[in-house]
Amino acid sequence: MRVLGIDPGLRNLGWGVIDVTGSRLSHVANGIIRSEGEAMGARLLSLFDALTRIVAAYAPTAAAVEQTFVNKDGAGTLKLGQARGIAMLVPAQAGLTVGEYAPNAVKKAVVGVGHADKAQVAHMVRFQLPGVELAGPDAADALAIAICHAHHLQGAGRMAAALKGAA
Amino acid sequence: MRVLGIDPGLRNLGWGVIDVTGSRLSHVANGIIRSEGEAMGARLLSLFDALTRIVAAYAPTAAAVEQTFVNKDGAGTLKLGQARGIAMLVPAQAGLTVGEYAPNAVKKAVVGVGHADKAQVAHMVRFQLPGVELAGPDAADALAIAICHAHHLQGAGRMAAALKGAA
Repeated sequence: MRVLGIDPGLRNLGWGVIDVTGSRLSHVANGIIRSEGEAMGARLLSLFDALTRIVAAYAPTAAAVEQTFVNKDGAGTLKLGQARGIAMLVPAQAGLTVGEYAPNAVKKAVVGVGHADKAQVAHMVRFQLPGVELAGPDAADALAIAICHAHHLQGAGRMAAALKGAA
Repeated sequence: MRVLGIDPGLRNLGWGVIDVTGSRLSHVANGIIRSEGEAMGARLLSLFDALTRIVAAYAPTAAAVEQTFVNKDGAGTLKLGQARGIAMLVPAQAGLTVGEYAPNAVKKAVVGVGHADKAQVAHMVRFQLPGVELAGPDAADALAIAICHAHHLQGAGRMAAALKGAA
């Protein structure tokens, strides 16, 4: 199983790809897409094109996106939503179901507690993916989302296997 | 000039296409895209595919999207933003610059006042596009956005012509 995690943002969109073999995780790639252009349409198109190239290059078999929203600022939330729309569209175009996780769920899966800070997340991502070089905090978050999704899918798989064994 | 107007929404996305010849406007088509599927990725993909077909079928030369945001509800604003991301991406993919207008600007251009209600907007859209059959309120709003954008582009054209004449 190969999992793509995405931390959506209009200015910086973090992405990370991991391989999952049994309970073993390994790092494949990570990076940050910076949207280009002045106009919103052009910026969204640059995110779309870059993310489409990443999905084509790494061919993930599962994908997940962070479920964030800004509460205080309607205009900022709308912009984040636009970037998030692109982040969910591209894996869906590749035929993938896109998992969604709240930031606290991601932190809990990776660090063990829901209120971890960015440095703790990056530290545990490095620990769980030995040798990884992180492109930046958004890329670390994206890998954390991929790890969270891998745990979730493994749990679901174990559950299915246990139910099958019990039947 | 052929103008596509889009009133973005996740559940119902209104669209409308008009032709502009000099100061004469005429209706080409309008409709409502209803997103299908349970998962967010699938819903966004269904919007994307339907809107891509509309752009391919009607080949607009200009496009505009309503600039709305929900202030009170962060989750609702994020969802609207996701649909709006798709609404801005598809015309940008076709090489179009995407105009953005606040609802009040659209109402002012079509009805003459910024605080018009939906019924007034639909009435004036029917008046300005004789013979039009509206697919619903969201499609009327989308045609109003197209009319607003046409006025804006005509104004810019007249300004350029006047400046050229004065030079």
